[in-house]
Amino acid sequence: MWAVRKGRAAAGLELVELPVPTVGDDEVLVRVEAASICGTDLHIHRWDEWAQRRIRPPLVLGHEFAGTIVETGRLVRHAQEGDYVSAESHITCGVCFNCRTGRAHMCERTQILGVERDGAFAEYVAVPESVIWQNDRTKLPPEIATLQEPFGNAVFALAHADLAGKTVGILGCGPVGLFSIGIARASGAGRILASDTRPFRLGLAQRMGADAVVDATLEGADALVELNEGEHLDVVFEMSGAPAAIETAFESVRHGGRVILFGIPARPVELDIAEALIFKNLDVSAVSGRQVWATWYRTQWLLEHGIVDLRPLITEECGLEDFERAFELLASGDACKIVLRPERAAAEAAA
Amino acid sequence: MWAVRKGRAAAGLELVELPVPTVGDDEVLVRVEAASICGTDLHIHRWDEWAQRRIRPPLVLGHEFAGTIVETGRLVRHAQEGDYVSAESHITCGVCFNCRTGRAHMCERTQILGVERDGAFAEYVAVPESVIWQNDRTKLPPEIATLQEPFGNAVFALAHADLAGKTVGILGCGPVGLFSIGIARASGAGRILASDTRPFRLGLAQRMGADAVVDATLEGADALVELNEGEHLDVVFEMSGAPAAIETAFESVRHGGRVILFGIPARPVELDIAEALIFKNLDVSAVSGRQVWATWYRTQWLLEHGIVDLRPLITEECGLEDFERAFELLASGDACKIVLRPERAAAEAAA
Amino acid sequence: MWAVRKGRAAAGLELVELPVPTVGDDEVLVRVEAASICGTDLHIHRWDEWAQRRIRPPLVLGHEFAGTIVETGRLVRHAQEGDYVSAESHITCGVCFNCRTGRAHMCERTQILGVERDGAFAEYVAVPESVIWQNDRTKLPPEIATLQEPFGNAVFALAHADLAGKTVGILGCGPVGLFSIGIARASGAGRILASDTRPFRLGLAQRMGADAVVDATLEGADALVELNEGEHLDVVFEMSGAPAAIETAFESVRHGGRVILFGIPARPVELDIAEALIFKNLDVSAVSGRQVWATWYRTQWLLEHGIVDLRPLITEECGLEDFERAFELLASGDACKIVLRPERAAAEAAA
Amino acid sequence: MWAVRKGRAAAGLELVELPVPTVGDDEVLVRVEAASICGTDLHIHRWDEWAQRRIRPPLVLGHEFAGTIVETGRLVRHAQEGDYVSAESHITCGVCFNCRTGRAHMCERTQILGVERDGAFAEYVAVPESVIWQNDRTKLPPEIATLQEPFGNAVFALAHADLAGKTVGILGCGPVGLFSIGIARASGAGRILASDTRPFRLGLAQRMGADAVVDATLEGADALVELNEGEHLDVVFEMSGAPAAIETAFESVRHGGRVILFGIPARPVELDIAEALIFKNLDVSAVSGRQVWATWYRTQWLLEHGIVDLRPLITEECGLEDFERAFELLASGDACKIVLRPERAAAEAAA
Repeated sequence: MWAVRKGRAAAGLELVELPVPTVGDDEVLVRVEAASICGTDLHIHRWDEWAQRRIRPPLVLGHEFAGTIVETGRLVRHAQEGDYVSAESHITCGVCFNCRTGRAHMCERTQILGVERDGAFAEYVAVPESVIWQNDRTKLPPEIATLQEPFGNAVFALAHADLAGKTVGILGCGPVGLFSIGIARASGAGRILASDTRPFRLGLAQRMGADAVVDATLEGADALVELNEGEHLDVVFEMSGAPAAIETAFESVRHGGRVILFGIPARPVELDIAEALIFKNLDVSAVSGRQVWATWYRTQWLLEHGIVDLRPLITEECGLEDFERAFELLASGDACKIVLRPERAAAEAAA
Repeated sequence: MWAVRKGRAAAGLELVELPVPTVGDDEVLVRVEAASICGTDLHIHRWDEWAQRRIRPPLVLGHEFAGTIVETGRLVRHAQEGDYVSAESHITCGVCFNCRTGRAHMCERTQILGVERDGAFAEYVAVPESVIWQNDRTKLPPEIATLQEPFGNAVFALAHADLAGKTVGILGCGPVGLFSIGIARASGAGRILASDTRPFRLGLAQRMGADAVVDATLEGADALVELNEGEHLDVVFEMSGAPAAIETAFESVRHGGRVILFGIPARPVELDIAEALIFKNLDVSAVSGRQVWATWYRTQWLLEHGIVDLRPLITEECGLEDFERAFELLASGDACKIVLRPERAAAEAAA
Repeated sequence: MWAVRKGRAAAGLELVELPVPTVGDDEVLVRVEAASICGTDLHIHRWDEWAQRRIRPPLVLGHEFAGTIVETGRLVRHAQEGDYVSAESHITCGVCFNCRTGRAHMCERTQILGVERDGAFAEYVAVPESVIWQNDRTKLPPEIATLQEPFGNAVFALAHADLAGKTVGILGCGPVGLFSIGIARASGAGRILASDTRPFRLGLAQRMGADAVVDATLEGADALVELNEGEHLDVVFEMSGAPAAIETAFESVRHGGRVILFGIPARPVELDIAEALIFKNLDVSAVSGRQVWATWYRTQWLLEHGIVDLRPLITEECGLEDFERAFELLASGDACKIVLRPERAAAEAAA
Repeated sequence: MWAVRKGRAAAGLELVELPVPTVGDDEVLVRVEAASICGTDLHIHRWDEWAQRRIRPPLVLGHEFAGTIVETGRLVRHAQEGDYVSAESHITCGVCFNCRTGRAHMCERTQILGVERDGAFAEYVAVPESVIWQNDRTKLPPEIATLQEPFGNAVFALAHADLAGKTVGILGCGPVGLFSIGIARASGAGRILASDTRPFRLGLAQRMGADAVVDATLEGADALVELNEGEHLDVVFEMSGAPAAIETAFESVRHGGRVILFGIPARPVELDIAEALIFKNLDVSAVSGRQVWATWYRTQWLLEHGIVDLRPLITEECGLEDFERAFELLASGDACKIVLRPERAAAEAAA
């Protein structure tokens, strides 16, 4: 089969032919119909500090996907050949305190698909049955079903605040920020203010329902407050990880408001805890991952009922063979979600 | 001034000329621009058992209104002549445990405007400054501003559940049920199923965003579950007070779901607490009134930002002199909210 | 091995010699060191309507226990021979919505140990690994470890309200009611008022920390309110299932208070929903079972740290051979928890 | 009357004779029976940067007190001569969003007694009726009643977490930290670990119920984790404001845990938001003040029912004339709460 992998400890990826993976006793083999590229994949491609520390090549990338089960291990209980599925990318231990109390996304023994084990930028991927999520093909086509994993991040982050009627700031309009705008719009938010540094993304923010956008290279908290008729914001989602945006989050939120931190800053940030947090009586939630499976159900419902439409955010679809162009496009900031279609590579190779 | 009042302890109301009310030290006098009729007013008109027990004629009716302050008592601190206002209808003691902990709507010493003291179906009404709510005329015209009081009931009821992605049942499509459909639609509900006994109301339910409606004279919980692809409902709002609907609420909700009881049954109801509640691990919230002022802020935001549009529910506007026809229309079930315009009566009397 | 079982569809139980159970692939075999009798066991013994509908003899009773694993099935992953364990009594499907979102106790495909499959009133019991809970022998002796299952009911029920400083009513002083008093006392409740019909239980209520007790055969809501200096109660736990107590719960709670329903009434109950619930703006939680495993962790912590001491509630310990006397004593109401020691039966048989 | 005041913009305080304050229309005059010294008073005495920025001498200090009303302004409605009272120290506007939605403690127009207007280190203090809290002399003597204000800070902070069975860290054993230990102990916490830099305070921590204490000059997060059998802590309250303790809070808390920030650091602090917050999925509440009046009710209940006993924390009582010694003692760290008795000064002056 064809696969996109990190072949060695250096920048870049390669398209290679590999044997179809063998399924373990507890695993299923999925023929990948769609897989989407995440910011994490860019880090691995670029081979930055984080990637050098975490990744052990060779490794097939990809943790967001949808496809069809074509084989099941002998101890698999419920999944069946022919099932149309996606997967939670975090493979967790199942027996620790967090796994057993609804917080599997905080399991300290997590393995991530496409990070610690071979992923889905390939014609086939083997995954444990325990992370399989059943899709309904009549409701979600593969290019949407693959987005459930990253969309779930936004669904989980947004579940940390009650938005009806409120003024909501969303700082950072990468895919999860843009997903969040769509959810906030569908959740009765009164006014949605978005910021980013790139015009392409601010355009998508408006398309997803932002009432107004701010160019973060030029403006910060003051602009947000002004757009809210001089009032500070009720809830601010920090989705960029940029230190300046973190500061803007704490400055623009009102006394007694709520800040949700999702974007991951590359280094420690200085915070004026007295003025920015305590005297404001803030509630802060730091959010990572998705609840397994509570978030997946809500994700599915929001998409299947058409409450949030993700199609405007799929800015490109291509075969595995175009991976290099896809990664470049994404790195340029002029794309949102790019969907890979491993079958195309297969078809071309066959032709 | 002209006013619609209950003149004596018998069915019916009368349009009479009365002196403009004198304002107390803590009160303001409001020139009423719009006032809307509530189900409570129908009870008083009809002079049913509840009304006979509660009402002491003579009494000017009306507790939902918007208008302009024309006079202020000498101890009034913040309200001013010219302010465009509405009012919380429940005048509470301000010093009991409930009043001092954000639950004023549960004050046991409450007096209600148009129930225990003269109300707003008149050219002028005197109200304590403590219940005055400031409106913004550029954002809410009087016929919408007067609806904040009853719409607030729905806003408060809906705040008792997290609706994003969920299947929501709304049983009873009187005004508060219909408001609730609008809010649920704006709150990301995945599927909204509504029931009522009257075709006119089911039509409005669809207009407000219900995905499907059920004729409660013919069908109950089974129909709701079938419309939800065989699954029980996540959250059910009982807004009718009909014993059959209360039963439907508990039958149609899923294990671990949530029932919100708002409709007031006329007599005790038999409940199978073991099967309908305990083995289902239900959370039940019984809801009445609105939080002062948390609900009012959210109400204002939802209306000012256009998140919920109430105009389709104003099925009639008329002068005080048409009150008899308005009450009949409302009693017939072929109306939703009717807005009275006291100024018209005044203008005609002047002409 | 010796076991206490329901041999045929009639009142009574029998002590019989049976083969040690065979362990399935996913199961472990536990040598039972302590097992405790629950009200459910009394229903099965008495062969009442519920038991006749639910139970298919022959069946070994018992779903509360502690013991040591002596054998593991070939697919068991984590449990090991020698582990000192108890078990969640509800064996659930693991794949339904409730199982996958932290509400396994509401799985509609639940099988209960000692109800749908052979239980722990025996020298050995076979249970699926999925319900095994690890105990620490240095912290919890078997007679306390077996109580984790029923104590968990109280822990879960009490987790539905914030008790610090509040006046708490606990209606019904069976084991779960008495556990609840202990937890409420340890949770900062300001005043704990308990009621029951039996003097023996009211004595234990005081021993567990009730500030005052009420004889429910003589007094109801008025007495509770009087004991609270004329104020209604903040939170009321209904743990008896008696219709009169359910009425007392709704009458004695304050406006804006909270009622938790745990006791299971034998038939439908009439409720004045308007006066008792809606005009009081009540929150009602109907509670059954325990959260798997969140409640178990909290249960373990409360017991291991000595926050709640259950020893006063173990009113009898005996061998399996004394089961008849134990069941009689429990049925008489002059006992709380009775712990069976299957080893004694074995020892005597061996002697 | 005698009063302790900041006479001019420099370090130190003075005991002076002043006229008894005149009561405004909305105010009451209270004869002070007990007043307690707060850390804020030390800042003002010492005339540090914060005090220089905030305080406008001359100013009578003191915002914690209990006493008897001896005079009422002509617009006072409920308070009466002879009432035994304390007061919320934050005098708020009453009409802003925060004041009207149960968050008066976040009103941006707050005036603090003894900071922006003359306080209670005097024989008499005038306060607005709106902040008066009624005490019951049969239940709370003046030296305890005066502590309701600072104890309320701990009650409010602790209300941000559910503690039953959990391991709780309390970093900083000043008065509010020590109050917190008492509340945590009464709230079912499984294990309470406290840290401070001073042996005197660590001794009081143990007396209030800490299971183990850590000398923060020598040890940090590792020691706390070790004392918790190698597990990270469930909830950590940072009550010191020391940057090292803030770091310890985030390091010692478990994944998915909760940090409450109450101590006010003097300058910005660097936080590793990625590792310390986001990858830990933390909830952080920054807390200041008390809810008016929800916290006061709970405070009263906890004290009146004897759930928390504050007497061990009153390490000194003296007359106003001993203020200099009292301030020194407090600054030395070898005291917890010091209660001033203005009547003694008066008695001596009279003698």
